[in-house]
Amino acid sequence: MTLSIDVIHGPNLNMLGRREPEIYGTTTLKDIDQSLVHRAAALGVEITTFQSNSEGALVDRIQHAFENCHGLIINPAAYTHTSVALRDALSMLSCPILEVHLSNIHKREAFRHHSHVSGVAQGIIAGFGARGYLMALDALVEMIREKRNR
Amino acid sequence: MTLSIDVIHGPNLNMLGRREPEIYGTTTLKDIDQSLVHRAAALGVEITTFQSNSEGALVDRIQHAFENCHGLIINPAAYTHTSVALRDALSMLSCPILEVHLSNIHKREAFRHHSHVSGVAQGIIAGFGARGYLMALDALVEMIREKRNR
Amino acid sequence: MTLSIDVIHGPNLNMLGRREPEIYGTTTLKDIDQSLVHRAAALGVEITTFQSNSEGALVDRIQHAFENCHGLIINPAAYTHTSVALRDALSMLSCPILEVHLSNIHKREAFRHHSHVSGVAQGIIAGFGARGYLMALDALVEMIREKRNR
Amino acid sequence: MTLSIDVIHGPNLNMLGRREPEIYGTTTLKDIDQSLVHRAAALGVEITTFQSNSEGALVDRIQHAFENCHGLIINPAAYTHTSVALRDALSMLSCPILEVHLSNIHKREAFRHHSHVSGVAQGIIAGFGARGYLMALDALVEMIREKRNR
Amino acid sequence: MTLSIDVIHGPNLNMLGRREPEIYGTTTLKDIDQSLVHRAAALGVEITTFQSNSEGALVDRIQHAFENCHGLIINPAAYTHTSVALRDALSMLSCPILEVHLSNIHKREAFRHHSHVSGVAQGIIAGFGARGYLMALDALVEMIREKRNR
Amino acid sequence: MTLSIDVIHGPNLNMLGRREPEIYGTTTLKDIDQSLVHRAAALGVEITTFQSNSEGALVDRIQHAFENCHGLIINPAAYTHTSVALRDALSMLSCPILEVHLSNIHKREAFRHHSHVSGVAQGIIAGFGARGYLMALDALVEMIREKRNR
Amino acid sequence: MTLSIDVIHGPNLNMLGRREPEIYGTTTLKDIDQSLVHRAAALGVEITTFQSNSEGALVDRIQHAFENCHGLIINPAAYTHTSVALRDALSMLSCPILEVHLSNIHKREAFRHHSHVSGVAQGIIAGFGARGYLMALDALVEMIREKRNR
Amino acid sequence: MTLSIDVIHGPNLNMLGRREPEIYGTTTLKDIDQSLVHRAAALGVEITTFQSNSEGALVDRIQHAFENCHGLIINPAAYTHTSVALRDALSMLSCPILEVHLSNIHKREAFRHHSHVSGVAQGIIAGFGARGYLMALDALVEMIREKRNR
Amino acid sequence: MTLSIDVIHGPNLNMLGRREPEIYGTTTLKDIDQSLVHRAAALGVEITTFQSNSEGALVDRIQHAFENCHGLIINPAAYTHTSVALRDALSMLSCPILEVHLSNIHKREAFRHHSHVSGVAQGIIAGFGARGYLMALDALVEMIREKRNR
Amino acid sequence: MTLSIDVIHGPNLNMLGRREPEIYGTTTLKDIDQSLVHRAAALGVEITTFQSNSEGALVDRIQHAFENCHGLIINPAAYTHTSVALRDALSMLSCPILEVHLSNIHKREAFRHHSHVSGVAQGIIAGFGARGYLMALDALVEMIREKRNR
Amino acid sequence: MTLSIDVIHGPNLNMLGRREPEIYGTTTLKDIDQSLVHRAAALGVEITTFQSNSEGALVDRIQHAFENCHGLIINPAAYTHTSVALRDALSMLSCPILEVHLSNIHKREAFRHHSHVSGVAQGIIAGFGARGYLMALDALVEMIREKRNR
Amino acid sequence: MTLSIDVIHGPNLNMLGRREPEIYGTTTLKDIDQSLVHRAAALGVEITTFQSNSEGALVDRIQHAFENCHGLIINPAAYTHTSVALRDALSMLSCPILEVHLSNIHKREAFRHHSHVSGVAQGIIAGFGARGYLMALDALVEMIREKRNR
Repeated sequence: MTLSIDVIHGPNLNMLGRREPEIYGTTTLKDIDQSLVHRAAALGVEITTFQSNSEGALVDRIQHAFENCHGLIINPAAYTHTSVALRDALSMLSCPILEVHLSNIHKREAFRHHSHVSGVAQGIIAGFGARGYLMALDALVEMIREKRNR
Repeated sequence: MTLSIDVIHGPNLNMLGRREPEIYGTTTLKDIDQSLVHRAAALGVEITTFQSNSEGALVDRIQHAFENCHGLIINPAAYTHTSVALRDALSMLSCPILEVHLSNIHKREAFRHHSHVSGVAQGIIAGFGARGYLMALDALVEMIREKRNR
Repeated sequence: MTLSIDVIHGPNLNMLGRREPEIYGTTTLKDIDQSLVHRAAALGVEITTFQSNSEGALVDRIQHAFENCHGLIINPAAYTHTSVALRDALSMLSCPILEVHLSNIHKREAFRHHSHVSGVAQGIIAGFGARGYLMALDALVEMIREKRNR
Repeated sequence: MTLSIDVIHGPNLNMLGRREPEIYGTTTLKDIDQSLVHRAAALGVEITTFQSNSEGALVDRIQHAFENCHGLIINPAAYTHTSVALRDALSMLSCPILEVHLSNIHKREAFRHHSHVSGVAQGIIAGFGARGYLMALDALVEMIREKRNR
Repeated sequence: MTLSIDVIHGPNLNMLGRREPEIYGTTTLKDIDQSLVHRAAALGVEITTFQSNSEGALVDRIQHAFENCHGLIINPAAYTHTSVALRDALSMLSCPILEVHLSNIHKREAFRHHSHVSGVAQGIIAGFGARGYLMALDALVEMIREKRNR
Repeated sequence: MTLSIDVIHGPNLNMLGRREPEIYGTTTLKDIDQSLVHRAAALGVEITTFQSNSEGALVDRIQHAFENCHGLIINPAAYTHTSVALRDALSMLSCPILEVHLSNIHKREAFRHHSHVSGVAQGIIAGFGARGYLMALDALVEMIREKRNR
Repeated sequence: MTLSIDVIHGPNLNMLGRREPEIYGTTTLKDIDQSLVHRAAALGVEITTFQSNSEGALVDRIQHAFENCHGLIINPAAYTHTSVALRDALSMLSCPILEVHLSNIHKREAFRHHSHVSGVAQGIIAGFGARGYLMALDALVEMIREKRNR
Repeated sequence: MTLSIDVIHGPNLNMLGRREPEIYGTTTLKDIDQSLVHRAAALGVEITTFQSNSEGALVDRIQHAFENCHGLIINPAAYTHTSVALRDALSMLSCPILEVHLSNIHKREAFRHHSHVSGVAQGIIAGFGARGYLMALDALVEMIREKRNR
Repeated sequence: MTLSIDVIHGPNLNMLGRREPEIYGTTTLKDIDQSLVHRAAALGVEITTFQSNSEGALVDRIQHAFENCHGLIINPAAYTHTSVALRDALSMLSCPILEVHLSNIHKREAFRHHSHVSGVAQGIIAGFGARGYLMALDALVEMIREKRNR
Repeated sequence: MTLSIDVIHGPNLNMLGRREPEIYGTTTLKDIDQSLVHRAAALGVEITTFQSNSEGALVDRIQHAFENCHGLIINPAAYTHTSVALRDALSMLSCPILEVHLSNIHKREAFRHHSHVSGVAQGIIAGFGARGYLMALDALVEMIREKRNR
Repeated sequence: MTLSIDVIHGPNLNMLGRREPEIYGTTTLKDIDQSLVHRAAALGVEITTFQSNSEGALVDRIQHAFENCHGLIINPAAYTHTSVALRDALSMLSCPILEVHLSNIHKREAFRHHSHVSGVAQGIIAGFGARGYLMALDALVEMIREKRNR
Repeated sequence: MTLSIDVIHGPNLNMLGRREPEIYGTTTLKDIDQSLVHRAAALGVEITTFQSNSEGALVDRIQHAFENCHGLIINPAAYTHTSVALRDALSMLSCPILEVHLSNIHKREAFRHHSHVSGVAQGIIAGFGARGYLMALDALVEMIREKRNR
């Protein structure tokens, strides 16, 4: 069976490449999604990407993954620090969850140091910019395949 | 005049019965809503139920109750702990508000011990699972009728 | 076998009806106990009520319940916020425990927002005045009977 | 070129005039928007107003301002205290941002004393009721024109 | 009608004169009570003194004052810092309450700086040793008589 | 009767224009006072301005306003964060009080985020530089006149 | 030798009788000073009273007491909560110091619950209004005379 | 002279062996008291044991030790964390005091990590179950005898 | 020029595979180092690995990297949470630093949630077990080569 | 098989008997080690003692115990309060661990009240001076032998 | 050009030599000022000294230094811990500022451990008594001259 | 007898002149040690300098000073903020201890504002760069000689 992976981008990530380039660079979200699709093809897995500025829409999307995917990559952006609803939605999933942040949130304002999501994620990748998503995809596929082969 | 009661369910409650059953049991939200409708019929009141994962949609719905109902039961779920907007919307209502939680939130993580909603609710029922909603409905109708008869 | 239920009232509740009626109303503790006895009779269960201003006497009474009752309802009043001894005594019991508060303690002073008891209670009912005891009794009996029938 | 100004109202402000009049008065949001439109006409600028109860919709609207306006006035209401997503969206804008509150939030509950938005706003006006919006509009237009003339 | 005054001494005050004389001096509680009785006689009022190490017994005694005295002087000793039950009992009384401490509690350990009782007392006298009780008695009688004469 | 307005400047504001121009600009306090006098003349009100580095002198001046003015504008500068005496003096006044800050204090050090004055001010204007005083004056006069006409 | 007593009043106490009468009553500071002078005459001691709104002037006055008085009564008012300088000045004195507050500061805002002065005062009297000064004077004279007679 | 040792057990310890055996084992308090009596006999000292659920009764008993024993062993149980009254009673004693806990309180809930008693005890033994009492008795007798022989 | 990479393992990591396998698995540090050496060879870079339980030796080793390597991977283990010295040593380096944790530290005790190192690292990888080191090596080499090619 | 016990002394304990004798007495570490060796011989067990001022060396030594001893006694001294590395090393051991402190750390500075080690130790003995080590050795041997005999 | 140095002494330092000599010694402020004048003469610089108990007068004096001196030495005494106004005044100066404390404030009460001034001072000297002023003068002159010679 | 002085440098100071020159300048530790040796020669005292990155080695070295020197100068660098072991070692010494910091630690990150060492040092010099060591040496020798001559 082909593996199906969901990638979920939180609020304001649709502005990537236009906003505070000294922190996030000039790569756009479309660029990231395309590189994820290419890498997914190379790895032989299916991938779906989703972005929303709405906490509720993100919760809806995570719930959708409940029966429809084998692994989930999420960059919760600002909701990292404020959303218990995302955490609760993620905690329902039995598939592995990876949390990605473009920047190293520990180098930014103090209110960005706490993550509601980390407590329910399996792994965390932060500070690698767009590359972090590809690292997460590679690792996620590898982890799922290893588990199946056991 | 027939009493009209609103029941509002917060984020992720639509997943009830599928998620962490050791905490919430196998009853679904549809089961709960049906038992509420049955009890409402027995009590001779009208009931409307509503669920959303979106904080904004929940605020919209509470505002709708402003002119359309005589009592409100809310399980704010994850928004209990993070939403001042829900609190503000509820504080507009002049009808009685009851806050229901399926589990005893004081037995869970520390960040679930504080409720933004409790300060504007009249009564709180927690830890009774689905039964809590029926307890709330019974008490709410009784309270409204007693007040009218005074 | 007839079910036996204990109801335990904490400090100053014997003054009910005489003290701060704007918060607690004019119902006396005797009124509450009588209505509990009537409801218990209707439900076919035995009920015993107990009040004390002494933390030690309340602990003694809870210990007495260890072998003598099938369910316990407690309004710990001021000891809610200060007594680890009550918590320890309650944590010994294997029967279900319900915590009742006449007022919504989250609308009062900040030092009343924390409960030492909630962590060992199964369910919590707050803000319903004297009605809260009857709600607790109904729910408790229902819960015990359901469990037995399983 | 005609200046274009966006005015964004946060959650529950659509209920203005119906809710807690002792704090907010009887003026409705429609009244405020009309007086802003009149003043804008007098100042020779274009103005657009927007209200939503949804954090995501507010973020969407702020992003829309990224390429479409020369100044922004926002009353984040309850999201003032809880939304990092709004802050992140606002921090993308290069035009001046003014934060308006109808009431003096420092006279209300402690959880209303902290603003996530203030750190990215240029100026703050609080406690002037509906008048605060007009003060903000006047100052904003003056500031933008002065800058252009330099 | 003769005024009736209650004086209530908290835990360990029965050991006065035997314990830490460098803080409390060598006067015994019996000495204090006698001097209070003498002063009461001189002032033409009745006085009753009571000491207990038990929080519950102190609450019982305060409740007894509810219908039996015109003014109350209390040195809650260690319960000053830990007893919400005493606070609740005192808040029932409509007569004036004075809080007395032998030592200046602000010169002692940090956990002695907070008083649960001060929020419901009318006046506080601390650091005057045994003299503080007499000061309280004089002031209390004067205050009650002035009020009556108005 | 001609309205009389007091403007009170706190410590170090006499150095305006010489100190940290990247935060406060090059306008001097004399410039500000002159523009206030001009605007006051245009509005048909009397205005008096006062600056001191001494907390006591500022308290004296606020007390002087008790019987001598119809509205007060204060920029408490550093005393914003440390002076309960200023707060107490302001709380005596029955006329409206507006608090002005040149910079947005929420963008500066954390110890500047708390204001002792905000709790007794009617409105707050921050981050508008010298313009903030004129905004305050306009609003203050408008508010006083509206009140009189009611 | 005649005893010499200093009474020092802190900021805003000169407004007594004009400010927030629901807290402080209508007695003026002049009334208080006169009743202190009368009582002092009756006790056969000399008394000097002093009020200032300036922390520095209060420190100067306390230093003056260093060689010129046998006991000091101080109501530090707002400086109670903010002034380490007053504390340091008082800690130089070898004569007994009594701290007086007109109201019970524990019934007011939380920032009024801490006193920098209490740690260096011998006794504290709070909540007795103007009467508190007379109680302090009586006790102070009695304490000094008893010490001398030993 | 025969040494006399007091052993004082706090609230709920009378339930030992029946409550949470995974933490405390199946040994009863009677078992512990008997083994203490046997060891005391072997050591040639007199021993008295006492248990109460009442804070006041424990304070009474500690006061009784003031003149009647040469060393005291106390397991304050839940009062460890809440009772300043016990601390004050213990601080009166001039004989050595040892604090015993059956379990290692640092492995339990955070609110059990602080002890009001430790600051006035000479030594602390925790986590050794019933054995801890015997260790305390041995050490106490040894310490008292060494001191006498010096 | 061949790239030279340093890998530094903090305290207790030499016990890997023997300790708490439910958290860390059965892979030994030697296994990890070997897989790193193999991957380095495949990538055409030189790698050196180092482990110590001594904070000082780790600081020495980081200083050695100052002139001798092009990138550094560090798992500071327990020193993550306590060592400012490691942070200071790392802050000297101009080459990129990646922080690796085997487990997701946010799922463990609260005192493991803060990292002194994260503030000076470029990227963070946590929760991937031994795989995390290989992910770090791949990303580090890629990042250095991209930078050189620019 | 002969039992093998490790005793590990933390930083500055090698100065025992020369440093702050009012807290620690005049006994040297050599004296303590000798008395432990004698007692071990009497108990029929082997004992090894070790002291270091280096956190890393202590971790090395604890790791050495992983395969070489049946019980461990540790006085972590200053590292009690600062070392997560020691805690991690100790948590690897499956043999019982006892924590010993010469003084009662709860009577010293506040920063000495928290122990990183207590959470992984089985039992704690504090405030008995050098005697504490012997108490620990006796109890440890007894506990291990009892477990074996079960 | 001759260098001009200002030395500013905060509140209560005029009492030096008369107050708490166990902390500050018997040297008077006059002694210190004289020794500073002598040392200044030897160094070939002009020196002016100033003391006040008034925060406002100290701010005035610091402002005076803005155009009149090349270096400033300040002992803010009690205002160290409470004055943002002093900090703001000092932050205007472009000349080097040295902060001097007679005693080591870290050995005194906790509220003396924080300094508002340290954040704007170049160097800090504490715990050297009167000698600290001379050390500051020597270093200040040396620093200014070195800078000029560069 | 010739005075013998120890100078102890903490972690990472061996990198001085190579690391963050904008904070610490280009002077190396060797430069500092040489200038100390020259000054010592001029003062007629012996001096020994020592640097280590290891907390344990620093403790060893401080203990060595116990019998071998008349005064100690220490720059604990990063261990300032984390090491209780250094504090304990220093507290053993009877000779005077001076604490030196190159930079003003109060201008750096918040976690550098607390020093474990300051509580046991006699004097503190911070923010003078390398000059601070010479200031410390001069003052230390002067202080020791003055004491001897008394």
